[in-house]
Amino acid sequence: MKSELLYGIHPVLETLAAGRRHVYEIYLGKEKKSGRLAQIESMAEAGGVLVKNIGPDGFNALTGTIGHQGAAARVSPYPQVSVQDILQTVQGEDKKNFLLILDNIQDPQNLGAIIRTALCVGIHGVVVPKDRSASPTPAVSKASAGALEHIHLVRVTNLVQTIKHCKAGGLWVMGLQKDAVQTIYTADLSGPIALVIGGEQKGMRQLVRKNCDFLMSIPQQGGLNSLNASVAAAVAMYEAFRQRI
Amino acid sequence: MKSELLYGIHPVLETLAAGRRHVYEIYLGKEKKSGRLAQIESMAEAGGVLVKNIGPDGFNALTGTIGHQGAAARVSPYPQVSVQDILQTVQGEDKKNFLLILDNIQDPQNLGAIIRTALCVGIHGVVVPKDRSASPTPAVSKASAGALEHIHLVRVTNLVQTIKHCKAGGLWVMGLQKDAVQTIYTADLSGPIALVIGGEQKGMRQLVRKNCDFLMSIPQQGGLNSLNASVAAAVAMYEAFRQRI
Repeated sequence: MKSELLYGIHPVLETLAAGRRHVYEIYLGKEKKSGRLAQIESMAEAGGVLVKNIGPDGFNALTGTIGHQGAAARVSPYPQVSVQDILQTVQGEDKKNFLLILDNIQDPQNLGAIIRTALCVGIHGVVVPKDRSASPTPAVSKASAGALEHIHLVRVTNLVQTIKHCKAGGLWVMGLQKDAVQTIYTADLSGPIALVIGGEQKGMRQLVRKNCDFLMSIPQQGGLNSLNASVAAAVAMYEAFRQRI
Repeated sequence: MKSELLYGIHPVLETLAAGRRHVYEIYLGKEKKSGRLAQIESMAEAGGVLVKNIGPDGFNALTGTIGHQGAAARVSPYPQVSVQDILQTVQGEDKKNFLLILDNIQDPQNLGAIIRTALCVGIHGVVVPKDRSASPTPAVSKASAGALEHIHLVRVTNLVQTIKHCKAGGLWVMGLQKDAVQTIYTADLSGPIALVIGGEQKGMRQLVRKNCDFLMSIPQQGGLNSLNASVAAAVAMYEAFRQRI
């Protein structure tokens, strides 16, 4: 039986709330629980999950980090779903697909931050390649403030193949590209779309870029400056969200 | 003579490029310089600044961090400017004021990230209170990728007083507030404005909020989720930027 150890208040809480993973065991600090720790305890009780109380040193050793906030959970691996499933479900619900494809995002902090925003704008699925990308680890769940536990994150072998699937499914594939003439404000993002965003250093791979229907940039004042990857992703996602309201 | 030690490639490079601080001494790694380290070396030479070469251990000890990237600089303190100066300069240039007021942003990483985005959208000045806020430290310069060296950041004693100054100067003071009925998309952000954004945990203080002309929220899907402070700031600043293009 494969399992993972999630840590941090939000990842544990949102895993229980989402109900997608098996929760085998929950670990909480020994002190009296209040606020969200008490909430975890009562949700665990309601779900019949074993709770173990551990002291601070044991917690650091168990999680391998000091960022555990006195909460951890032994859970089943991140649930897998296919892009095809997402596309069909969304269409079945009579909504316009809104996908996010991430190429080369390698920093777990950035991936987590992007997923947190993606959930806020109602992204139906986030697609990342199996190589060249951070994967849905406990660190990413923590960085996403638990949003990873609610969003559908899909790992695929071949991103270009996924883009072709999206096109065949009627989605417009819109890539974010620094020097593109068209901008997120002139582009039409109101229909079924897959937003493609590249990584911190290198942007997206050439073959991925070539397979986009449109490329668009985020306007910026001045020459020297640049946006952080997770901020650029947020600005693009929110512009699409604005156009779709 | 008061001085600070900046560290990291971007802070050192952008301090030299901005030319606002006195640069007393530059420290670089002992290895052969390439790319931006070589650029720092030649800018230092052109400016007649002494360059000292130090080994890795010396660098860690000098900067007190391992995030120095082989570049540091002994510089004069962050340059001070007043809100009044910014308001007058901008009006003199026949532009519409675009200010950012931050209350309770205490995490240097968040302040740095917000400043980085602020420079991208052409914010004329960022105002923070002297207490209850991260200050323009070397850590913030690093987190801003050097954007702090170009932006005008003003520290004030009384934020409410600053808001009144802004109003007297013809600016609309627009506060970001989670539960506001009006949103950043229904608000008019195209004129002279000061955007007010609160901190990670508590938002803005009550008296600050009460002095805003308008309160507006960022629309979000679903109930449980929330945006990171620097992402919320970026989305609001970019919506203002979009309306002002």
